[in-house]
Amino acid sequence: MIVQLQKDITAEQRTEIIDKINQLKYKTNPVKTQKGDYLIGIGKAEFDIREIGHMEGISDIHIVSDSYKLVSKKWKVRPTSIDLGDGVTIESGKFAIMTGPCSIEGEDQICQTIDHLKENGVKIMRGGVYKPRSSPYSFRGLGIEGLKQWHDAAKEAGIKIITEVMQVSQIEEMHDYVDIFQVGARNTQNFNLLDELGKVDKAVMIKRGISGSIDELLYSAEYVFSGGNEKLILCERGIRTYETASRNTMDLNAIPILKEKTHLPVVADPSHGIGIRHHVEAIALASIMAGADGVIYESHHVPERAYSDGQQTLNFQESKDLIRKMTEVYNLRERL
Amino acid sequence: MIVQLQKDITAEQRTEIIDKINQLKYKTNPVKTQKGDYLIGIGKAEFDIREIGHMEGISDIHIVSDSYKLVSKKWKVRPTSIDLGDGVTIESGKFAIMTGPCSIEGEDQICQTIDHLKENGVKIMRGGVYKPRSSPYSFRGLGIEGLKQWHDAAKEAGIKIITEVMQVSQIEEMHDYVDIFQVGARNTQNFNLLDELGKVDKAVMIKRGISGSIDELLYSAEYVFSGGNEKLILCERGIRTYETASRNTMDLNAIPILKEKTHLPVVADPSHGIGIRHHVEAIALASIMAGADGVIYESHHVPERAYSDGQQTLNFQESKDLIRKMTEVYNLRERL
Amino acid sequence: MIVQLQKDITAEQRTEIIDKINQLKYKTNPVKTQKGDYLIGIGKAEFDIREIGHMEGISDIHIVSDSYKLVSKKWKVRPTSIDLGDGVTIESGKFAIMTGPCSIEGEDQICQTIDHLKENGVKIMRGGVYKPRSSPYSFRGLGIEGLKQWHDAAKEAGIKIITEVMQVSQIEEMHDYVDIFQVGARNTQNFNLLDELGKVDKAVMIKRGISGSIDELLYSAEYVFSGGNEKLILCERGIRTYETASRNTMDLNAIPILKEKTHLPVVADPSHGIGIRHHVEAIALASIMAGADGVIYESHHVPERAYSDGQQTLNFQESKDLIRKMTEVYNLRERL
Amino acid sequence: MIVQLQKDITAEQRTEIIDKINQLKYKTNPVKTQKGDYLIGIGKAEFDIREIGHMEGISDIHIVSDSYKLVSKKWKVRPTSIDLGDGVTIESGKFAIMTGPCSIEGEDQICQTIDHLKENGVKIMRGGVYKPRSSPYSFRGLGIEGLKQWHDAAKEAGIKIITEVMQVSQIEEMHDYVDIFQVGARNTQNFNLLDELGKVDKAVMIKRGISGSIDELLYSAEYVFSGGNEKLILCERGIRTYETASRNTMDLNAIPILKEKTHLPVVADPSHGIGIRHHVEAIALASIMAGADGVIYESHHVPERAYSDGQQTLNFQESKDLIRKMTEVYNLRERL
Repeated sequence: MIVQLQKDITAEQRTEIIDKINQLKYKTNPVKTQKGDYLIGIGKAEFDIREIGHMEGISDIHIVSDSYKLVSKKWKVRPTSIDLGDGVTIESGKFAIMTGPCSIEGEDQICQTIDHLKENGVKIMRGGVYKPRSSPYSFRGLGIEGLKQWHDAAKEAGIKIITEVMQVSQIEEMHDYVDIFQVGARNTQNFNLLDELGKVDKAVMIKRGISGSIDELLYSAEYVFSGGNEKLILCERGIRTYETASRNTMDLNAIPILKEKTHLPVVADPSHGIGIRHHVEAIALASIMAGADGVIYESHHVPERAYSDGQQTLNFQESKDLIRKMTEVYNLRERL
Repeated sequence: MIVQLQKDITAEQRTEIIDKINQLKYKTNPVKTQKGDYLIGIGKAEFDIREIGHMEGISDIHIVSDSYKLVSKKWKVRPTSIDLGDGVTIESGKFAIMTGPCSIEGEDQICQTIDHLKENGVKIMRGGVYKPRSSPYSFRGLGIEGLKQWHDAAKEAGIKIITEVMQVSQIEEMHDYVDIFQVGARNTQNFNLLDELGKVDKAVMIKRGISGSIDELLYSAEYVFSGGNEKLILCERGIRTYETASRNTMDLNAIPILKEKTHLPVVADPSHGIGIRHHVEAIALASIMAGADGVIYESHHVPERAYSDGQQTLNFQESKDLIRKMTEVYNLRERL
Repeated sequence: MIVQLQKDITAEQRTEIIDKINQLKYKTNPVKTQKGDYLIGIGKAEFDIREIGHMEGISDIHIVSDSYKLVSKKWKVRPTSIDLGDGVTIESGKFAIMTGPCSIEGEDQICQTIDHLKENGVKIMRGGVYKPRSSPYSFRGLGIEGLKQWHDAAKEAGIKIITEVMQVSQIEEMHDYVDIFQVGARNTQNFNLLDELGKVDKAVMIKRGISGSIDELLYSAEYVFSGGNEKLILCERGIRTYETASRNTMDLNAIPILKEKTHLPVVADPSHGIGIRHHVEAIALASIMAGADGVIYESHHVPERAYSDGQQTLNFQESKDLIRKMTEVYNLRERL
Repeated sequence: MIVQLQKDITAEQRTEIIDKINQLKYKTNPVKTQKGDYLIGIGKAEFDIREIGHMEGISDIHIVSDSYKLVSKKWKVRPTSIDLGDGVTIESGKFAIMTGPCSIEGEDQICQTIDHLKENGVKIMRGGVYKPRSSPYSFRGLGIEGLKQWHDAAKEAGIKIITEVMQVSQIEEMHDYVDIFQVGARNTQNFNLLDELGKVDKAVMIKRGISGSIDELLYSAEYVFSGGNEKLILCERGIRTYETASRNTMDLNAIPILKEKTHLPVVADPSHGIGIRHHVEAIALASIMAGADGVIYESHHVPERAYSDGQQTLNFQESKDLIRKMTEVYNLRERL
């Protein structure tokens, strides 16, 4: 059960509501986000919603039987729009493009990428400054200094930044230079990180875990949401299976299923989803037809010389073609 | 190595070529299909193709290092077209639609389905008369009598039939009533069945195994092809993974990867791929954008009363909408 | 529901029982095996078992809610013993050893293997004469002639034969030369083959499918059992997962779970389960501790020269050591 | 390549060695652990080890082509022993038992568990005070106060503590109350956590990721080791597969494979590996036969009332029986 409280609720009203919920053998979890004040009731007993609904201080109430609550479409039917400022949004039912390199490598690369985005009307740039790498001896990213340099150039160009945060201690130092914090596939169930991102007033994109289920992705989103942050985006990026012909198995089933279960926007990452450069386009276009609200993919001015993930990274000509095609496919989807 | 022999090759020429290949430490497998006469050389030694290429009696020669040979795009660059007669084809790069019920249930259902196909310009009807069922106590299909009844009605309407063959002994009895023999996901590696289908002059569609790899699907196709039958279609129908939110995990990565590796047409089965009726459309349209040469899906006049698979079967209104949308998506793909 | 009928039941009594079951909204499937005469009731309604239990002509009745019935431990609590003749048995709770080459290669190999078995007190020899191979160009086994040669030598030595049958048409020709028909992992859901093996008076060992579930293995066993053949053995041989460090992922969880669900004997195949010769021993011994009623593994006088599977095949010294160790581990298990 | 440096190496000698390695086109990563001072060379060029081996300041050198280096058995052939003090060790080739509840719940539970351990000669107690939970609304553990209480009781009883650390900020507060830091399956690739645990002078046990590969587990160990901490233990706890009859699929193949690849001790967690209380024993005993250097499992004085994981937790009588049986199985393994 989710009870949304009125802004001007009194302490007594609040206490009465909590007592009432507890009488129904439900435990109450108070949740205060940037947008609302909620009581989440956890329990299994059946009850008549009218027993609570009439009480003073309540603005809305719903029974949500899923284990995730606030991210459920049963709670919020209208699609969610994430406002990144300057007119840039990521929105359920619309279509956003995010591109850029796997790793931020330096000034020249940053500038060339920004120019590529501007020429093609793309408003959000991806790139990594903290890189999770299987081996401790691999390149681990330029870190906070790289991010600052990137931020200066992007801000001037009106480009928003999405980049991965790997641990709690990075949140504060990255905060002012980031528009969307990305939670990577290895951190989807790093619950402490999710808790802390709940306290941040920036958008958060959570990637599905390497072998994460669709429900687990929604639970992870519930962590951030119930921590206080409603600006959430989900991302399908392929799962681990026995098939070795592709890097991961892009699970496009997840897109219509997620869109049915949650009001949050869902984007697709075809670069990691298939991991083969000349097939990224096919999977990107398929993702749109499956219902994705956006696509995030890797591009680089010279993929062959990228510090990481070059084998799945488009060059700027390929990226330009893809942007044009994605726009046409999205337009058709809207008309169908 | 694949050596295509001239139609009028002499016995001596043939012997000389085989001797030459054996000298290169390659074993030779003779393959005679409905269309051609080949020698497949199996070995690993490097050699200069000109040593053989100039010999009398050879019409074409290629080095194909994949373990599958005749189905490889390295052998045959031009896309394959399967001619079902009466102007009905399934062709690499084009788009075919196949629909109908999971199980053939009787005359009324057959007629209603045929009417639905005719109204929507669909030329190929699917349906099962032999059903593979996990439990021996489940409905196992109407068998050969159901097929004959179906065939009579379909023939009159100019509709082609695709239906599953489960074992060698059924091939002969089914032969005259079938346009495409379907090999189901549980029989992808039933090598005896594949061998026998190699001897048949009817098209064969092989579904990917329940947890079959892309390469294994190509090997299975090689069985039929090297058995003599070049009229082959491949089908992606979802694989088994840990995710339980969908019936299978539709692997759309497989479509561009297969299209790169083989000249054979590749179709998608979104009904089994996601297994949820109201999401079949999203996955069907995504499959087309991923490059599928056709879509096969389940439809029924009253899905709720279907003998099997009702939960993933479209009714005729949904089917009609899907056909219209698929056509538009395919048309866009052609223009992009 | 399973109703076991008395041997001397009259036609009228039988009809009355069927009518009664149908009145409870259960469908009846008659099953006649080599040992018993049963009615399998399929339905979901609740009823009082005493309504039927008292009727004339019934020797036993149980409610079995699993989808598999006759193989369930809820039906038959006592462990099953498969009698192969000459005092050789495979029995739930005991321990049987089966070894021999992947492929039967010829007389010398047969004789050396039989000598190895005799020296070590092993009574059952494995070997393949029909080999399922991914590629049509690989060695496919010596066929029926190889089996006859093997049978002559084995019979003289008092050794029983287990070998794979790949299709229905092979059953008859193999019948007189085989003690246990093996259904391979690619044929676990070849339902026609299972149906036909139900009619045979020889033991059948069904391997778990390449990505088959535990329940599917039990359903496949139910096919053979309800077809009439109670002499069934199940085999865990590893499943397909994302892990590539081993050939398959041996699922030893399956052993105690199967032993809880069915009265049939369960054996382990560590050769395919791990696929690495020097680790076969560890997995064989672990299988026994997990509760296996037997172990089947590959051995060869010169594994390096085996026609197939050499990388997972023990030489005779390794095999001898393993037999000694397995015996000690089994003895300890009995004492614990 | 791994170069172990002499303790009294001079700065000039060190520089010379680094220059020499760089000349071979290898990058050098300096690693200083509690026990040694190393240079890890990363590169692919072939070279003659004698070119470096004779240089001043080197105590040992090996070519290790695996991507993991210091944890490889190619570097260190002798098995590793982790000394926890007071004569308690976890050692490759020996056998350690760790048991206790999933979650620490309070004083009574702590005391009863400690009594159970003492009565059965078990020296290491497991328990969670920070619990990773899929849903934010579930019980998340007693936290640091629970740990302190536990520590007081355990210290008095001479019992060592293993407990999960979920994030970097917990390391310092937990440090004095913990004997082994456990890295959970969701944090196996939390590289920041691994980095920081490399700086700690306490043992660390890393669980295999939920769908982690064997190689990834070794890379994660390399993170901690190259961060400075050699006191490492690996743990197989089951992987995620399609099979739903068990909670996870215990991958006992991983045990002999890990034992071959690394000198670190490898323990098994049958509680999570199968997740079914009455089958934990079978998998625990099988793990020992597969070569495990220890078993960690869940026990509770009243499993039915445990705050978490009760369905896979043994009561003390079951635990006592298991300890006796494990000891007998280990003893047999030693004798074989």
